[in-house]
Amino acid sequence: MSKITFLGGGSFGTSLAVLLAEKNNIINIYNRDKNVVDEINSKRTNEKYMKNLIIPESVTAFNDIDKAIEGADYIILSVPSHVIRNMCEKIKGKIPENVPIISIAKGIEEGSNKRLSVVIEEELKNPVVVLSGPSHAEEVALKLPTTLVSTSENMEYAADIQDLFMTSYLRIYTNDDIIGVEIGGAVKNIIALAAGIIDGLGYGDNTKAALITRGMKEISRVGMALDGRAETFYGLTGMGDLIVTCTSKHSRNRKAGLLIGEGMSVDEAINEVGMVVEGVKACRAFYELKEKKDILMPITDGLYKVLFEGRNPKEVIDELMNRDKKNEVF
Amino acid sequence: MSKITFLGGGSFGTSLAVLLAEKNNIINIYNRDKNVVDEINSKRTNEKYMKNLIIPESVTAFNDIDKAIEGADYIILSVPSHVIRNMCEKIKGKIPENVPIISIAKGIEEGSNKRLSVVIEEELKNPVVVLSGPSHAEEVALKLPTTLVSTSENMEYAADIQDLFMTSYLRIYTNDDIIGVEIGGAVKNIIALAAGIIDGLGYGDNTKAALITRGMKEISRVGMALDGRAETFYGLTGMGDLIVTCTSKHSRNRKAGLLIGEGMSVDEAINEVGMVVEGVKACRAFYELKEKKDILMPITDGLYKVLFEGRNPKEVIDELMNRDKKNEVF
Repeated sequence: MSKITFLGGGSFGTSLAVLLAEKNNIINIYNRDKNVVDEINSKRTNEKYMKNLIIPESVTAFNDIDKAIEGADYIILSVPSHVIRNMCEKIKGKIPENVPIISIAKGIEEGSNKRLSVVIEEELKNPVVVLSGPSHAEEVALKLPTTLVSTSENMEYAADIQDLFMTSYLRIYTNDDIIGVEIGGAVKNIIALAAGIIDGLGYGDNTKAALITRGMKEISRVGMALDGRAETFYGLTGMGDLIVTCTSKHSRNRKAGLLIGEGMSVDEAINEVGMVVEGVKACRAFYELKEKKDILMPITDGLYKVLFEGRNPKEVIDELMNRDKKNEVF
Repeated sequence: MSKITFLGGGSFGTSLAVLLAEKNNIINIYNRDKNVVDEINSKRTNEKYMKNLIIPESVTAFNDIDKAIEGADYIILSVPSHVIRNMCEKIKGKIPENVPIISIAKGIEEGSNKRLSVVIEEELKNPVVVLSGPSHAEEVALKLPTTLVSTSENMEYAADIQDLFMTSYLRIYTNDDIIGVEIGGAVKNIIALAAGIIDGLGYGDNTKAALITRGMKEISRVGMALDGRAETFYGLTGMGDLIVTCTSKHSRNRKAGLLIGEGMSVDEAINEVGMVVEGVKACRAFYELKEKKDILMPITDGLYKVLFEGRNPKEVIDELMNRDKKNEVF
């Protein structure tokens, strides 16, 4: 039995909190929204982020972060990418340095374009583990078979987290390529947004399969330029997560793209989704990166024009499809 | 303008025949079913295989194969894998040896376990080109953007076929790895059947993404053992076609799996689909191959037990998900 604190009480965090509670751990959830905290503690639900999930009595929610982290054996950062640094600053100096920090966010920091584990390590001296993979929160909550990858600079911690989370329906693999895991998880949201646009424009499965396949090349191209390994990009945290994000009804990134493809403005679409759309931020970050390092990323390029330069999505997709005839491998 | 003969008038063949006719070619279609031939010639439709498609006047259907191939500049084999050899035998000695034969079937020959281009080369001295990729016939007929790969032992012919088929909505890439293209196209149907079973059992997108990702490893493992190249398996004809087959409502292989997952017997499911389910044949062929060459293919193994040994699909899937914890890359 361990004491585990979640910082942030979103969809994925809540479903994992329930999973760990059912494995006989004591769970604290910190959330800045008092309504969410009260609802968890009194009604045992978190309807805004996860409908129809009963939260066990061994889960307690807090509005006070200091109380939430008191005595924690593990701390799980379940906040969007842009809140990671701020959350680390809030707990700096307040936790023993041997408490593992587990990051479940996908993205890179805007402005600095740093991987999230690097951001955490800049703020805290604790060991950092990243959990990533094709895992819509709604399906974890329903106990549908799901796979994740656990990775760290120090694989002893990754193996410990593998044990902490593994159940009959959540299968955890280890992988020591933390760069590859984090880059794949961030870039796939860009491709998912583009895939959503294709759906919104009324194109078919053929078109989307082509985009996903070419998107996979884009992920591995930028990922290897940043020192990740090809086999990671073609594994669960790259290809697997890309597929689930591009095809699932649950994906916020795909949903935002779908609305844009159907004719909504970018701001309206983000507003309509109502939660953070990581792909928008990732697109800006990787556009900057690819420009600086001169990496070929035609889909990211096209999406950037749609999101930030007001280009028409149909024109951009048609341009992507109608380049000169060429050899497949280039 | 060329004269092009399709042997077989199924879904994909019919949609490509219309595409080539609209590019101002003269098209003949040979079909053994007199009703199909009469319907094409008199009503300009082929409702059994392709609803709502108007077939231009420049397409003529024949019940007599000798008349259909007379004067052809290109011959396209658009029949299921098990009919390929027989179709080649029927035209042997009747066409000039410089007429390219284009194969659009996906599978390997049962019994011999040979790639289809090898089967054709055993029967005919003509150049052989393989067209493959994520391309549901229904969407090609609707002119939705689609990509294909053209490959051959002699890439001059592959480039010629690229020109022959390319339109604003059908983008053709060349790739000189004919082994990789054919093996990927055959094995993906095995994984698609398994993906359908997962859908039929009511599992979610997380589970399916994990299966597709692990299936991709299986394709590249057997493919490389048979001398294909990794980059081909992760391209349009491998990964791209795998994604479209595993997620599309149009896929017969996925549909058969879905019905089996929902509780139908294998025979009932094949019957219900009503057209050839290549994945069933491919599963038997690759099961034999993997046994002989000792290749690790757990999904093919599991599917074989369901299809041919009467094992319960849910038990087999649960076994696949619940092996020992391990490292992702193995």
